[in-house]
Amino acid sequence: MDKTKHLETFPNPKPEREYEIEHFFPEFTSNCPKTGQPDFGEITIRYVADQTCLELKGLKFYLNAYRNEGIFYEAITNQILDDLVAACQPRWMEVETDWNPRGGFRSRIVADYQKES
Amino acid sequence: MDKTKHLETFPNPKPEREYEIEHFFPEFTSNCPKTGQPDFGEITIRYVADQTCLELKGLKFYLNAYRNEGIFYEAITNQILDDLVAACQPRWMEVETDWNPRGGFRSRIVADYQKES
Amino acid sequence: MDKTKHLETFPNPKPEREYEIEHFFPEFTSNCPKTGQPDFGEITIRYVADQTCLELKGLKFYLNAYRNEGIFYEAITNQILDDLVAACQPRWMEVETDWNPRGGFRSRIVADYQKES
Amino acid sequence: MDKTKHLETFPNPKPEREYEIEHFFPEFTSNCPKTGQPDFGEITIRYVADQTCLELKGLKFYLNAYRNEGIFYEAITNQILDDLVAACQPRWMEVETDWNPRGGFRSRIVADYQKES
Amino acid sequence: MDKTKHLETFPNPKPEREYEIEHFFPEFTSNCPKTGQPDFGEITIRYVADQTCLELKGLKFYLNAYRNEGIFYEAITNQILDDLVAACQPRWMEVETDWNPRGGFRSRIVADYQKES
Amino acid sequence: MDKTKHLETFPNPKPEREYEIEHFFPEFTSNCPKTGQPDFGEITIRYVADQTCLELKGLKFYLNAYRNEGIFYEAITNQILDDLVAACQPRWMEVETDWNPRGGFRSRIVADYQKES
Amino acid sequence: MDKTKHLETFPNPKPEREYEIEHFFPEFTSNCPKTGQPDFGEITIRYVADQTCLELKGLKFYLNAYRNEGIFYEAITNQILDDLVAACQPRWMEVETDWNPRGGFRSRIVADYQKES
Amino acid sequence: MDKTKHLETFPNPKPEREYEIEHFFPEFTSNCPKTGQPDFGEITIRYVADQTCLELKGLKFYLNAYRNEGIFYEAITNQILDDLVAACQPRWMEVETDWNPRGGFRSRIVADYQKES
Amino acid sequence: MDKTKHLETFPNPKPEREYEIEHFFPEFTSNCPKTGQPDFGEITIRYVADQTCLELKGLKFYLNAYRNEGIFYEAITNQILDDLVAACQPRWMEVETDWNPRGGFRSRIVADYQKES
Amino acid sequence: MDKTKHLETFPNPKPEREYEIEHFFPEFTSNCPKTGQPDFGEITIRYVADQTCLELKGLKFYLNAYRNEGIFYEAITNQILDDLVAACQPRWMEVETDWNPRGGFRSRIVADYQKES
Repeated sequence: MDKTKHLETFPNPKPEREYEIEHFFPEFTSNCPKTGQPDFGEITIRYVADQTCLELKGLKFYLNAYRNEGIFYEAITNQILDDLVAACQPRWMEVETDWNPRGGFRSRIVADYQKES
Repeated sequence: MDKTKHLETFPNPKPEREYEIEHFFPEFTSNCPKTGQPDFGEITIRYVADQTCLELKGLKFYLNAYRNEGIFYEAITNQILDDLVAACQPRWMEVETDWNPRGGFRSRIVADYQKES
Repeated sequence: MDKTKHLETFPNPKPEREYEIEHFFPEFTSNCPKTGQPDFGEITIRYVADQTCLELKGLKFYLNAYRNEGIFYEAITNQILDDLVAACQPRWMEVETDWNPRGGFRSRIVADYQKES
Repeated sequence: MDKTKHLETFPNPKPEREYEIEHFFPEFTSNCPKTGQPDFGEITIRYVADQTCLELKGLKFYLNAYRNEGIFYEAITNQILDDLVAACQPRWMEVETDWNPRGGFRSRIVADYQKES
Repeated sequence: MDKTKHLETFPNPKPEREYEIEHFFPEFTSNCPKTGQPDFGEITIRYVADQTCLELKGLKFYLNAYRNEGIFYEAITNQILDDLVAACQPRWMEVETDWNPRGGFRSRIVADYQKES
Repeated sequence: MDKTKHLETFPNPKPEREYEIEHFFPEFTSNCPKTGQPDFGEITIRYVADQTCLELKGLKFYLNAYRNEGIFYEAITNQILDDLVAACQPRWMEVETDWNPRGGFRSRIVADYQKES
Repeated sequence: MDKTKHLETFPNPKPEREYEIEHFFPEFTSNCPKTGQPDFGEITIRYVADQTCLELKGLKFYLNAYRNEGIFYEAITNQILDDLVAACQPRWMEVETDWNPRGGFRSRIVADYQKES
Repeated sequence: MDKTKHLETFPNPKPEREYEIEHFFPEFTSNCPKTGQPDFGEITIRYVADQTCLELKGLKFYLNAYRNEGIFYEAITNQILDDLVAACQPRWMEVETDWNPRGGFRSRIVADYQKES
Repeated sequence: MDKTKHLETFPNPKPEREYEIEHFFPEFTSNCPKTGQPDFGEITIRYVADQTCLELKGLKFYLNAYRNEGIFYEAITNQILDDLVAACQPRWMEVETDWNPRGGFRSRIVADYQKES
Repeated sequence: MDKTKHLETFPNPKPEREYEIEHFFPEFTSNCPKTGQPDFGEITIRYVADQTCLELKGLKFYLNAYRNEGIFYEAITNQILDDLVAACQPRWMEVETDWNPRGGFRSRIVADYQKES
């Protein structure tokens, strides 16, 4: 199933102003593609909207759709950024993922998108 | 009723100096326009005054006037910025809103105003 | 499938002494039986072993087996306590569950078992 | 309107065991009966259920119903305890209210109920 | 001037229940009787009311009346306890004072009153 | 009385080096000019000395001299900066005032001085 | 030199009440009797006075007198307790010493005195 | 090699008083007997000495001697307690081990010894 | 044995985007080359991958291989940076080591690598 | 006695790379030149080595040599910076001193050295 079908947008109430929106989601879980055991992480999405904003209920369903999928940290981070950029066409967006300890490591990935001017 | 009628100002005691004023209000509440259930957030107002400063008692009444209004995070943040800029004509102002968890998300919106020189 | 089949035990290395063992598992997730949306919580298991101790790898598989099950907080807490008591027959055991905010509430349930003497 | 009509219960899944349930609600607001200005507080409800448990959605509506009511700290705390005891007939219950600073004071009220045996 | 004239009480809304009230006042200041320099401390008042409760505005004026008085930590703590017990006749009361560093020491005094039965 | 008479200076031990000095004073109190009730705040003074440094004992007496004066946050901050600049003629100075909650707001004012080159 | 000559007392302002006094001194330093290198610790003194209280300035001089003395943790703790008990004859006293890391260990010693009745 | 040969004691400076000694060692490491990978934990030793106290340098060498040994949490905790009791014959002793996350779990074991009277 | 033989890489899932990866490893231990006693530290690795990413299991084995090696802080930090740069050829990399107290000091070393363009 | 005779250096293991070294020493004590009473502070030394690094044992003896010296905050900070620069000839160095409260103030001094190129 295509996870991005959950994503919805609504019109930016102040498109003439550049302002920053941040959504922090501390309840992300997916599966490790190697061991099949669950991974747990926190997702932070920061963006400057252009014409549309991300609707929160759809964003939650989109993120929850990773629950039983096996995927690496680096790939998740880039896929979320690509999907959200495609959905709301922001001026700028950053996705940060912070992961619970595995094998002694705590990991963090940060990826940015900048609209070409 | 027009919420902005609560806003009052007093003369800046040192208008020849650019200095920063910050007011943090941790007790903001409004209603979600979708569900009608209450939202709770924290409002931070930072500004560099020009000729007038915002009076705190009026500012409190202005913010409390959102108590039973249904309005989205992004719209509140921009409306407060627009209303306060209109009231005290600052050199610069920033409004930040930080929201209690809803649907697993904690959200934060930051909008700025810069007087044209 | 019977979740308890994951549980394994090993001999208590010092059964003649009453000492306390605590395992804290911050990565529990199940589903809300009403909405189908995921719940996230932290599980703390404290016990005084009698002849056997709980093996950690099996305990993890047991707890992860709730991942796609719909069940209420109060029922989970009591079921985990009942299952673990049956598996290792401790002198005393306590299960505490601490839940992420839902509808504005953070909840916590604590249940104890005391072997009859 | 009678606030207690929001309260609902469901059967205790393990009535033969005495275990503790705690719900923490950090988003309580009511009005000061003297000034009419809003008060903000945090409500903690701890109880040992007998035959029924408090349903959370109804409990939220019950607490939100104080939003535009003018009432003192000491009276709120005792009224919530009385209403919840009447609704679910617990073996034991404690209501704690913690209030944001007013006039330089932070206040906290704790009241308990113990079923007669 | 007699500081206790500021103190006012109101009827306990639930005199038949023993419940605890706590008021925390982080803005106390008096003077050191030796050096004349200001001391700063935090006052916590915990009590179980009998027929009357302490009114907060009067309590603030009472505590603020120590602002320019020279008095030792141990004496302040006992005097506040004696004055408040006389004003509201509680079943039990505790006064705790916590003092900012002076001469390298942080100090704390706790005194209790128990009504004779 | 002129508060600035308390201020004293001593020769900068290393005037040929630009280095930063910070003094944090968490025990400031003055009165609100509207209500006459006390305000409490924390004062931070940061500066790069030129030929003289501020002596701490005099600085304390200077700040304590506001104890029974009625004055607004914005005015205090600028007056302290003006007085200290006049006293020690620094290359750069910043005064930050952070205020305890009043009417639900916590406020912070920051003002800077830069010597003209 | 006899360190206890620094200790002074003053009359307990409320000898008929049992109340607790605590002085926390985070700036204790002595020398290790083995290596001669300095040790750093925090001293907490809690007591219930009988007829006299410990005066703070003398207590500071007493504690500072250990600065260049070589002595073990366990011996310091008991010596301070013995000296202070002899000086002010309390109903009860506790001395706690908390030590900065040495050789990977953080250490804490707690000793109590109870007046015989 | 026998790890206990590192342990040394010195005479208790105040054997007639029952007082508590605590040593916290945050740098313990051993190996998992199953995987051979390192475990990391914190060891807290609390005791009431009788005639002798544990010398810290020897205690460090004793704990460091587990560095390349494969042993389970429950067994380590009881073995340390048994070895230290044998070495210094205390009136009472408690050993607590707190372990870094493994497989999502944080674990803690606490074992006590009480001299028979 | 050559520690770098443990290091493995996998293809960067999004090589056309510059994004940051951080791995934090709080369980590093080596030996002091002077005393032979163990050192404990935390290692943070931050990098922008080019064509390959560092595989975590191999990275753990690489870092654990320092367990019984005697080496100085400054040398470890630079050696880890050199080895990891050689293994994955990043666009940019930073290695930070934070060390537990030794002799009263806590130390931190940070070294960076920037690919020449 | 000349304190700088304690300072020793060792060859920088990677002189061709600019990397930062930080040593934090929370146990500094000297005497106030006015009152003779002890001051307590924390010293942070950050530097980019050129050909030599500071050896930690000698650095500790150097800092401990201030123990019974009477000297002002501003002078200590600059003297440590001058002495350490002379000893190891770094590319860049910063000395920060943070002081325990005295007379209500907490103070902090930061001084930098930059090698001329």
